[in-house]
Parts: sequence; structure tokens; C-alpha cells
Amino acid sequence: MKHYDCVVIGTGPAGQKGAIQAAKLGKSVAIVEKNKVLGGAQINTGTIPSKALREAVLQLTTGHRRGIYGTSKHVKEQVTIADLVSFSQRVIRHEWEIIRDQFERNNVDLHWGHAQFVGPNEVAIEGPDGEERITADRFLLGVGTRPARPENVPFNGQTIFTSDAVMKLDHLPKTMIVVGGGVIGTEYACIMATLGVQVTLIEGRNKVLGFLDQEICDAFQYFIRQRGITLRLGEKVEAIREVDCNSSSGQNGSVCRLVEAKLESGKIIHAGTLLYAVGRQGVCKQLGLDKVGIEFDDRERLQVNEHYQTNVDHVYAAGDVIGFPSLASTSMEQGRRAICHAFGCSEGNYNTSLFPYGIYAVPEISMVGKTEEQLTAEGIPYESGVANYREIARGQLLGDELGMLKMLIHQETHKLLGVHVIGTGATELIHIGQAVMALDGDAEFFVNNVFNFPTLAECYKVAAYNGLNKLNNVYSGSCQPVAVSC
Amino acid sequence: MKHYDCVVIGTGPAGQKGAIQAAKLGKSVAIVEKNKVLGGAQINTGTIPSKALREAVLQLTTGHRRGIYGTSKHVKEQVTIADLVSFSQRVIRHEWEIIRDQFERNNVDLHWGHAQFVGPNEVAIEGPDGEERITADRFLLGVGTRPARPENVPFNGQTIFTSDAVMKLDHLPKTMIVVGGGVIGTEYACIMATLGVQVTLIEGRNKVLGFLDQEICDAFQYFIRQRGITLRLGEKVEAIREVDCNSSSGQNGSVCRLVEAKLESGKIIHAGTLLYAVGRQGVCKQLGLDKVGIEFDDRERLQVNEHYQTNVDHVYAAGDVIGFPSLASTSMEQGRRAICHAFGCSEGNYNTSLFPYGIYAVPEISMVGKTEEQLTAEGIPYESGVANYREIARGQLLGDELGMLKMLIHQETHKLLGVHVIGTGATELIHIGQAVMALDGDAEFFVNNVFNFPTLAECYKVAAYNGLNKLNNVYSGSCQPVAVSC
Repeated sequence: MKHYDCVVIGTGPAGQKGAIQAAKLGKSVAIVEKNKVLGGAQINTGTIPSKALREAVLQLTTGHRRGIYGTSKHVKEQVTIADLVSFSQRVIRHEWEIIRDQFERNNVDLHWGHAQFVGPNEVAIEGPDGEERITADRFLLGVGTRPARPENVPFNGQTIFTSDAVMKLDHLPKTMIVVGGGVIGTEYACIMATLGVQVTLIEGRNKVLGFLDQEICDAFQYFIRQRGITLRLGEKVEAIREVDCNSSSGQNGSVCRLVEAKLESGKIIHAGTLLYAVGRQGVCKQLGLDKVGIEFDDRERLQVNEHYQTNVDHVYAAGDVIGFPSLASTSMEQGRRAICHAFGCSEGNYNTSLFPYGIYAVPEISMVGKTEEQLTAEGIPYESGVANYREIARGQLLGDELGMLKMLIHQETHKLLGVHVIGTGATELIHIGQAVMALDGDAEFFVNNVFNFPTLAECYKVAAYNGLNKLNNVYSGSCQPVAVSC
Repeated sequence: MKHYDCVVIGTGPAGQKGAIQAAKLGKSVAIVEKNKVLGGAQINTGTIPSKALREAVLQLTTGHRRGIYGTSKHVKEQVTIADLVSFSQRVIRHEWEIIRDQFERNNVDLHWGHAQFVGPNEVAIEGPDGEERITADRFLLGVGTRPARPENVPFNGQTIFTSDAVMKLDHLPKTMIVVGGGVIGTEYACIMATLGVQVTLIEGRNKVLGFLDQEICDAFQYFIRQRGITLRLGEKVEAIREVDCNSSSGQNGSVCRLVEAKLESGKIIHAGTLLYAVGRQGVCKQLGLDKVGIEFDDRERLQVNEHYQTNVDHVYAAGDVIGFPSLASTSMEQGRRAICHAFGCSEGNYNTSLFPYGIYAVPEISMVGKTEEQLTAEGIPYESGVANYREIARGQLLGDELGMLKMLIHQETHKLLGVHVIGTGATELIHIGQAVMALDGDAEFFVNNVFNFPTLAECYKVAAYNGLNKLNNVYSGSCQPVAVSC
């Protein structure tokens, strides 16, 4: 029975980065993958496929929306879901190769199969060629989650499905109900709406993406409604079923089927398809965690301390299985830090309050630092500075009339407290503000800085002027207050 | 005769920002524009139109190159230059409105006409309604430049033209000779090549864009050759003339005309069109500068000191008329600083060595700080860290196989000495590195930072790991060396 310094379960972002980190520390490492492919939800069902689909859809529709092609014919009708998916498959295959190559170069032993603890330091791996047992001093669980599939939802994979099945759709539906206004539900709702699908998005709370700054959330909800998405906020789904078209709409045709969602408020909603995107569920029951004494909650998720340790010291967990924020970017960092702690070396001094959040909806959203609501609750005095993309030459060139960047500035120190961006390139743009926050810069930095023209980065200058001008009229007699584009 | 605190000549970026700055300081300001439209070359003939054309061309071609549309029909043939130009005209009109609105809100008096000094503090403005005279205490000359038009080049505006005429082309030529591998020549050469025009680019020096880092320049020259551009480096044009097709190529057809460029090396090159983009020329002769005692050089450009003062104290100059770098971004800052100095207030403490350079070629290029060649010449010890877009998930999603980011790291302090980017979004991406340089961060910052996934910003992390790993193997036993994607 082979013994390792470290065994990692799951090859998603948390497992990958953890395994490589351990190898770089000179440890012997094994990693176990129960699916037929590497990369977990990030590469196979979640992050990458949805971003690839989004990228293809935007490419497809943007030029036309902007009228760049003049009166030439619209190509959209010529595109099938198969085209879009084939593009994404190429990206996915490339990512598989990168991961496999990383494991090989770093001598990480890759085991295919389903791992289950059989003792505190031993796992049995049920693979294609039978069972194998390995032991280790330390474990990292990066087992991810799967979409929750409540028993009262009649999933069929074709008209009623979870996010894992979206990429397998063989045609574009005309109408879709999306249940759940979290990151996954919202991103797919936007992609589908951009493709011309009539979407109804149902969310139990009174807004989608509840962690966003309210102003950004309001703007986002306004934009997606403008794009034709119907929002049903503060509504819960009571029952979902398939019905005949004629029983619901009075149309004839015996093979015609629709999905019907009945809301607690009594409303009945019909659509061709329904994407169920409420909650994700751990897969801890399959891991034999009772053999180690590790506890999990009713959604099979693990609780960890600030070092990503479970209630059993030598077993760590990272990524989706430990809950919010469940983003690939943060999962990677969690995996790396868990291993650093496990082998007693420094985790670096990174401030987790500067984790960025990126939402690949249409429009794109990103944030770093605090929201206005958080600052108000914490009694921190701030002013906001706003730049609209439409004021910026680059925004005009991109045809982005909606985008905005908001920075929150401490009223006294003028330090940045948060940056919130909605619009093209938001997830990239946020990193300028993040660097300035991390390196203790203030809003004046942007005023004095020279930005390439034309760029969206200029928004930082305009927003800083806007905020500083509101903050103190002392500026109006000095050299600083020249608004760049407004 | 109306008297002002400040008269600004020219409404390009330098003049605009100078005038608004003076107004914000509470000064009475007039601005004079000799063309029929506001904004100078930035908005009307240079920056914006070429970037708009580039944007349209990329939109048009990118999706197809990447195969996102599967086997669906190529739309390119359906697009006319008129479509592309109409898109750009909308952006230009919008910029006019923004500038006019800015002037109005800040009470800047706008005078249309040609300004000429008639005394040290007095200009005569020859406008559509006759002559008008105004006086001022201070002047800012932001008069810009126009393309040089040597007498021995037979310009005709249709087959032999300067960059000012590109947007007026009524059809896409099949072949084009571009003379001059500076920013303007290179940008148009790339745009035309992307549209399928066979381009030959002739540059007197042995590389295009001479100020670039050599590695980036090499990569760029490789990429554009791959795209079908023929580079003739270290070659000078001796004579340019129009010839009949049959006299040159033996084809028949009496109305067929070609452009012929004869190089000093003896080579003869033919093409349907020729863009002459060597040098730009000031317009100072028209300004009556002898009445003030201001000198200009043989290309009619002005020399200024570090405060943007000409040899006559109360007259400042900024923008293209003072020479390199002649970018809209730097011209704005020059205009603002000139006025700050003119009225005796602080110019801010911005370090001009952190001016970014953005080249909107295909691929895009941007840089901040020093090149490898500069550092070597100055005896500053450095290491380089490189990230290739193709290693980054976002690069894969964008289909950008060429892009790369290089950071130059001080061997001892690990401070950033320069960042060089070639590829999609380079001009935006550079600002993350610029902020870190300005705020005195080091390469470790990127290693510890969490970036949104998938973004191009992740290149900073990969490049930092690459550079730091080369610098010291001390890392290989610590927690820091996990390469993110490579």
C-alpha cells in the first residue's frame, strides 16, 4: 500500500492548486478524480463552459447590436447550439491538457476512481481496474458540489434540468423559466436572453445576486429587464410539472408539452424549458467521512476554520464544498493556503477582504471591497464617485451604453473602500482598483495618473474626480478638479 | 476688444483639457478652433476614427477567425467601407457633443476661426463672419500637427494619400504600400491587413515602432508577417509615382493605374494604393509667432521646457506640436499641467516615467516603464517574467494564441521596472502594472493577489511566478512558487 505525504480528492481548482503546491514543497502527492475527466465543475460543467458559451454568444450578437455591419444580413439564425458547444469543447480539451501536464511535470500521482475513507489515514479508490488503497499524512478534500435536485422537481434533462445539462441542450428553446437568481441562474438567464430566449427568472429574495452593492444590483436588474428578462422577485416555486400545451394554453397538438411552474403566490408560469438553479449540494455522504470523524451539514457541505481545516486536524477542505463564495478564483487560493498550513509554511499575507468577485452575466459585473450598504452598517463615512462608460470614448467605441464604474472613497482619508463595476470588461477592470486598495493608494492616485486613451480604465479617473469633487470644494480652486470626460 | 486670463488655440486633447483646467481655476478662458469641427486630430482624423475603424474591423473578423460561428457563412464580403465609416461617424459626433457641452458648462468661450498673433498678448481670429481680436495674459498652443506631405510625393487623395484620407477611401484596395513604420503607419497597416488587404510596410530603420522593447517588437513583427504584411525594414523610398498597369505588370487595360514606389536599394514595389505616414508637420508658420518672438524648428514644431513653456514665458505649448510621444493621453496631461504652471498652482506629483504607451495595432501593444534594452544600458539588474495568453483560460476563451505579458523585475528589490503587453486588451491590462509600479509594489504582490477567473489579469500572476522562480530557488522550498497555469 503506497503512502503519500498528501492525498488530494478532486481535481477542480482547489484540488489542482493544492496538489501542485504540495508537490512544489517537495511532498509526495496523489490526487484522485472520480469523474472520467479532470478539472471538476470549473472546467467541465461550470465556469469554463458557461464562459465559453457566453463568449460565443456575445461575439455572435454584439456586432449586430451595434450596427457595425450596416445593413448586412443577421447571421444569428444560422447558428446552432452545436456550433457554440463545439467552440467550448475545444477550450475544455485544452484545459484538460494543461492540468494533466501540470500533474506530470510536478510528479503528482493521478488516480482515477471514487475515493472513500476506510480509516483516518487511508482511502480506498474504486477505479475502472478495481480497488486500490493508499495512505497519507494529510488530506485535502476538494470534492466540489453538484446542483441540488429536489425530489419534487421532475427533472428529465431535456425540458426540466439543472445547470449541468444546459450545455447538452440540442436546440435553443423559445422560452425558459430559470429558478434561482444566484450566480449560476443569473448568468444562464442572461446568456439565454441574449440569444433571444424569453426568460422568466424566479428568485425567493427580493433581488438577484444578493451580495452585490444595491446600486449595481438595481442597474443590473434594470438592464436585464430591458433585455426582455421577466423578474419574479420574492417569489417561491411551489410545484413544477410538465403539462400538455392545450391543457394550459388552449392550443391544439397532442405531442406539444410545456413546463408549468406554480408559485406560492398562486401565479402559474409556463415555458418550453425550466432551468433549476437553486443551491448546490455537497457529495460528502460518499466519502466515508464517518471513518475519520468528519461532520457535514444537511447539504453535505463541510465547515472549516480559517486555515481550511475540518474538525479533524489532518484533513483540510477547500472550494465549493465549503460554501460561499464558490468561485474558481477563490477556490484555487483556498487549496493553496490549506496545503501551506498543512505543511507548516507561510500562507502569504494576502488580505482576504480584497478577494474580487466576478459575475459573467450580460452585462458583466465585478466588485472588490465593501458595498455602500456594508459601509453604512459599519458606520464608515464614505462618498461615491461614478463614471459611466458612455462618457468615456472607449465606452462609445465598444457601444456599451450601460456600463458604469463606482468607487467608494473614505470621506476623511480618501482611501478606496470598494470598487464596483458593471459593463464590458468589468472582471478585468476591477484589478486596477484592487491593486490600488491593496497597496494603500487613495482616490487622488487616479486623478494624477495618466491612462491610455481610449480605454475603459479612464473610468477610474472620471470616477475619482466625481467622488473627490463631491467630497470637497477645496478642489475647485486647485489644479485637480478637471473632469476628464464629463 | 475682449480680454481673457487665458486663450487656448486648438481644441484637441491638449487644448481641451488646458481650457477646462483654466476655467476650473476660475479664470476667464477663450478657445479657438480653425477647423469646422471640435477635437483636432484626436477626434476627427486620428485617434478616434482609426480606433473606431479598428474596432469595427475586429468585430467583423474575430468571430470568424475563431470559428465560433461554425460553418455559417462569412459576412465580410457584405461589408463596405461606408458601413465601417458610418459607425465611426456616430462615435465622432458624440465626442463633439461632449466637448461642446464641457466648454459650455465651464463658460469657456469658443471662437471659430484661424488665430494669428498680432502682438505678444493679442490674437486676430479670422472667422466665418470676419476678423475678431482678443487679448490674454497667458496662451496655450495646442495646435497639433498635420501629416507631412513632401513635394516629391504625388498625393492625389485616392491612390496616394496621407492618414487623413484613409477614412475617406470609397473602396477597399486589394494592395497597399504603407511608407513609415511609426504608430500611425503601423496601426493602419494592421487594420488593412486584417481586412484582407495585401500590405507592404516600408520603414527606414531596422524595426517598426522603434521605442518598443525588443522582444515585444520581434513578436509583433513576427505576428504581422504571419498575417500577411510584408516588411521592408532598413529601406528608404526614393521615388513614388503612378504608372499604367501594363507598363509595370504587362497586363492590358488602358484605365488601370498602379502606384510604384522605388526604393533606394533599387527595388521597385507596386500596389493599388500608397499610404504615406512618415512624420507629421507642425502648422506654426500660420500663427504669426514672429510677433511674439517664439521660435519653431524646420518641421514647425515648438520646443518647451519641463513646464511646457515656450521660449516666451507667457506662451505655453502642449500636444503633438511639441513632438514625442504625441498620444492623446499624454497631450491631455500636458495641457493640464501647462495651465497649472501658467497660473501658479500645483501640477500634482505624477511621475512622467509612468506614462503608459498604447498602440492600437493588431495585435494591440502597451507598455509602461523601461524596456530590457534601457535597463541594460543603464546597468540596472533585472529578470523578466513572462505569461503567454494561451496558458491562461481567458486567452483560450478569447482565442488569442499570440498574446503575452512580460514584466521586468529588479533582481534585488523585486520591484517592477517595466511591463510590456502584446495582445487583446493590452492597453487596459497595462494599468494594473502601472498602479503597482506607481504605488511601489513588487512582483510578490501579484503572487499573493487573487484574480478573477477567467481573466487576462491572471497573466500578472503567472508572469510574476515565472520571474520570481527564475530569480531565486529559495522559493522552491517555500509556499510561493505554485505556477497558476503553467
